[in-house]
Amino acid sequence: MSKSPIRPLGDTINLSHGSGGRDMHRLLEQLILPTLCSGPIDDGDAASIAMAELINQGDRLAFTTDSYTITPLVFPGGDIGSLAVNGTVNDLAMSGAIPRYLSCALIIEEGFSIKALSSILQSMRTAADQANIRIIAGDTKVVHRGAADGLFINTAGIGVIPSKRQLGREHIRNDDIVIVSGFIGDHGAAVLAARDELQLAIPVDSDCQPLHVLTEALLSVCPNTRIMRDATRGGVASVLNELIADSSFGIQIMETLIPVRPVVRGACEILGLDPLYLANEGTMVAIIPEQDEQPALAAMQAQAAGVHARRIGKVTDHYPGLVSLLTQMGGERLIDIPSGELLPRIC
Amino acid sequence: MSKSPIRPLGDTINLSHGSGGRDMHRLLEQLILPTLCSGPIDDGDAASIAMAELINQGDRLAFTTDSYTITPLVFPGGDIGSLAVNGTVNDLAMSGAIPRYLSCALIIEEGFSIKALSSILQSMRTAADQANIRIIAGDTKVVHRGAADGLFINTAGIGVIPSKRQLGREHIRNDDIVIVSGFIGDHGAAVLAARDELQLAIPVDSDCQPLHVLTEALLSVCPNTRIMRDATRGGVASVLNELIADSSFGIQIMETLIPVRPVVRGACEILGLDPLYLANEGTMVAIIPEQDEQPALAAMQAQAAGVHARRIGKVTDHYPGLVSLLTQMGGERLIDIPSGELLPRIC
Repeated sequence: MSKSPIRPLGDTINLSHGSGGRDMHRLLEQLILPTLCSGPIDDGDAASIAMAELINQGDRLAFTTDSYTITPLVFPGGDIGSLAVNGTVNDLAMSGAIPRYLSCALIIEEGFSIKALSSILQSMRTAADQANIRIIAGDTKVVHRGAADGLFINTAGIGVIPSKRQLGREHIRNDDIVIVSGFIGDHGAAVLAARDELQLAIPVDSDCQPLHVLTEALLSVCPNTRIMRDATRGGVASVLNELIADSSFGIQIMETLIPVRPVVRGACEILGLDPLYLANEGTMVAIIPEQDEQPALAAMQAQAAGVHARRIGKVTDHYPGLVSLLTQMGGERLIDIPSGELLPRIC
Repeated sequence: MSKSPIRPLGDTINLSHGSGGRDMHRLLEQLILPTLCSGPIDDGDAASIAMAELINQGDRLAFTTDSYTITPLVFPGGDIGSLAVNGTVNDLAMSGAIPRYLSCALIIEEGFSIKALSSILQSMRTAADQANIRIIAGDTKVVHRGAADGLFINTAGIGVIPSKRQLGREHIRNDDIVIVSGFIGDHGAAVLAARDELQLAIPVDSDCQPLHVLTEALLSVCPNTRIMRDATRGGVASVLNELIADSSFGIQIMETLIPVRPVVRGACEILGLDPLYLANEGTMVAIIPEQDEQPALAAMQAQAAGVHARRIGKVTDHYPGLVSLLTQMGGERLIDIPSGELLPRIC
């Protein structure tokens, strides 16, 4: 009775890497676990977290999940790995939570390059370390060639919302102001350029980055922040519409105030795209009381992720449930929830 | 400024259902949220859980994730929806946790039937209700035709491990006994039959079911239970090997004691498969102190999921790190970790 000697991983993923046998164990032990996990690796079915690590009695847990199906897997400013960490970190941060724990579930197509996988896992680990979040649970599935498009990653996240934080649409009031944390549309533009669907005069990096430091900075000076959202799929236009859908308030934004890089604006004009609908992966919208504008913007601008933070509009009771744009030309038009396909597989 | 009227969902999923716009909202509001969610639906980025709902200070949180890529999506005894709930419920239960909250992330192929999706979501909800777990967070992505195989589901789960529960490989002792909770191989056989890869004389249903009531029953009479595992990918053979890998103990199981339905055994013989390597989705292995055998088996057999629970072997210090099988014929052979492809896309 003897065991097989340790073999190297080889060049590509095959079905045996997902079947629960020896090859899967080797993939886990030689690549996935040492890359993703910082602490000791729990060999049980579920990771366990001591409550004392987490909480005070008045705190709440935040829990969120997101699957990432972006194509291409690598793009200027990030890859599916950094996206899968930052996207879920940001979902937690937007709920007022301090991100703490992450799961990582991989669906890998047979034939996928182990070198590419390794690079993406390393990117996840780097992003997790930067966001101060620990990857503590995971799963690996391999599907046959043609049954998936290279690699899909799901992450679920747990964070802690300190007691007394009260974020929610119900806190929005007339004359509140709307701020964004930076240039919009960079992620969408970077991904389209990486797909050769968009020619950019100057390369643009995705804004893919964690926002939890920025949200903490904002909440520390503006505890009455009404609500925060990262403007991912569907862009700023979708988020603003969601925030005031079916409410007694509307939002009016000013075209001249919206920060868009000239190269992104120019490319959008050629393609007939509106930067308001382009996905972002490290840019947020917040609604705050008007009197907090100066300290809030100052606190955000002091953070790397918020240097270009600015006010772009305000809450109004003039057109409940709707978002309007005051254009550069002095006109006003409705910014609707997008319909149709938009840009698929952008995140 | 007026909004579009409410439109019906149509027959199939298209890319716009995943793009963050109006069609995605309609899919969420008309189908996914009302089917999956029992309580009020949080419209924020992350669901939040009051700590007071969850815990005593000495408790621990359990956190786990699994992606489900099974083919076919529907099989005798279950579908990908019930599997995605029960699989994660069972991962939590095996860690000694009481399952509490679940996330659900869908990756849907363009063109997927909305009727089939609806049926699978309903199946998730039924399974969640049966397991007394709430689905509180989710995500929906649509990928273009050919980029996924119909539907993949990821669930992540949060449970609470009551204080003082100490499960782990390090508690295993010489002469401990190994028990299984029921017939093995039913899930693998049912899925192979559904793929027409296996002809069964008598139909066999997957054992897909939640095990948290069974684990609580076992732990209540046998708090010194060493470790529990559900025998999914790779079957009982893989789980037993994992439990004693690199340890100073081995496991010896008796072929005559292993509960396998005659129809499953017969089919396996024809195909050259070993039921010990077939996946299960509602059958667990536990290692417990020898003196607890009678009360443990009695408590398990009193539960629907454990009627056929029995002892199948014991822990030994004779061959550290290895699993051996005493055959019906009186011989002894090594039960190795499987290598190679086994049966892909079985879970």
